[in-house]
Amino acid sequence: MDRPRFVIDSAEAEQMAKQSGQTVLQLLPSLVKSAQILARPPISKYHVGAVGMGSSGRIFLGVNLEFPGLPLNQTVHAEQFLITNLSLNAEPRLQYLAVSAAPCGHCRQFLQELRGAPDVKLLISSSEDEKENEINNCCNDKDQEFTPLSHFLSHRFGPDDLLEKDAPLLLESHRNGLSFRSNLCNDKIDGGDDLKHAALEAANMSHAPYSGCPSGVALLDVEGKIYKGSYMESAAYNPSLPPAQAAVVAYVASCGGGGL
Amino acid sequence: MDRPRFVIDSAEAEQMAKQSGQTVLQLLPSLVKSAQILARPPISKYHVGAVGMGSSGRIFLGVNLEFPGLPLNQTVHAEQFLITNLSLNAEPRLQYLAVSAAPCGHCRQFLQELRGAPDVKLLISSSEDEKENEINNCCNDKDQEFTPLSHFLSHRFGPDDLLEKDAPLLLESHRNGLSFRSNLCNDKIDGGDDLKHAALEAANMSHAPYSGCPSGVALLDVEGKIYKGSYMESAAYNPSLPPAQAAVVAYVASCGGGGL
Ligand SMILES: [Zn+2]
Ligand SMILES: [Zn+2]
Repeated sequence: MDRPRFVIDSAEAEQMAKQSGQTVLQLLPSLVKSAQILARPPISKYHVGAVGMGSSGRIFLGVNLEFPGLPLNQTVHAEQFLITNLSLNAEPRLQYLAVSAAPCGHCRQFLQELRGAPDVKLLISSSEDEKENEINNCCNDKDQEFTPLSHFLSHRFGPDDLLEKDAPLLLESHRNGLSFRSNLCNDKIDGGDDLKHAALEAANMSHAPYSGCPSGVALLDVEGKIYKGSYMESAAYNPSLPPAQAAVVAYVASCGGGGL
Repeated sequence: MDRPRFVIDSAEAEQMAKQSGQTVLQLLPSLVKSAQILARPPISKYHVGAVGMGSSGRIFLGVNLEFPGLPLNQTVHAEQFLITNLSLNAEPRLQYLAVSAAPCGHCRQFLQELRGAPDVKLLISSSEDEKENEINNCCNDKDQEFTPLSHFLSHRFGPDDLLEKDAPLLLESHRNGLSFRSNLCNDKIDGGDDLKHAALEAANMSHAPYSGCPSGVALLDVEGKIYKGSYMESAAYNPSLPPAQAAVVAYVASCGGGGL
């Protein structure tokens, strides 16, 4: 079996669509099931898959991650995984999103952090919808339609309510200008210096306009690969994604750990 | 000045309405501003007030609480404060809710944990709406209308998606059956035994059907009063309210600390 991939470049997406007689947009819901398989929900056993397309034409996958033994509010939802994946790959804008189940309110709120959030097009491709489609004799995925995110979170609360208009939003360029003031780091591990600088880089890309406290985490796996995670804040505070979670997303999205 | 009150009993609510020539329902938005004053948002300076009416006819207030130095996701939103307030006062059902600003997605999700959530009636009484009302020449609060919560979170994800139909929901009776197996508690503080049992009681009332890990926290203030907080989980995991936050809500709602 191929290594799972969480990013599909635009040329390949077009080829995949052509081969299956679909448009690239029709491809998104058809990839949701293969995304669901990659989810890691040991607590809920509820597999969520999210498949998004950015303005570059690339396709990104997101899955939910649950952590036994940690508080439930440390969970990463598939939509947050997806946005982190866009961020890791410097994709500036999410345009279309297909998900296996209706996004929860927490995720609808987190998505508000994107420029043009109300216009992101969303499609829920749940099995219940499929059943309904069968009943209604319209069982063809091609007939599914994307709906603006504004429909799913009317009367939105968002960055506009708290930030200046020209403030950079999530996925936009951040230069937080942090540097090391002294040797704060435990250098006794191999690659410690690289790890320290990776964490600093991640902190400098962090979206933390509400607290003014950007932060970053870097992980080192058994193969010596480094994974960076930037803290990403939400205007509603609680849906913010902590930097450790973002680094775990980077690890999972890169199939880190060498299969161990 | 009177001590602020976070619960108004039904007889007094009716009297207040009569005195101001309003119905009790019209009273809810008119109390939002006095609730906002009680908010404690040292980070955002964004004061949110929520005023709800339960099936008993009592009126409950909720405000947002922010904690400098803690991660933003430890924040308590006004709507969560309100639900905790209902829980502390054994109010079985929220029927009407007026808030100073559109509830964020996180709160719309948290509210799904209530029996009959889609039918809770919501009114946003923000100053912007007031401005609009003035422009439209309908500046009277009495003309404001409540809208079902289902309008604010269509295609909801909720307890129905994960729990059996007869499982108790938030604000319904929980008997988690926890007991002390041994002396786990530091008894060296005055009232330590009462405090320990208060925490156990809180844990036994906790709504934790998703993790199966109910928990409770009890706080003791300078006057020797005890405040109990029960952990309250959300089907979407992340909007869950930790027990320490619930206990702080109990403390604030009771004007704890003797003004210190
Ligand atoms: Zn979610
Ligand atoms: Zn909220």
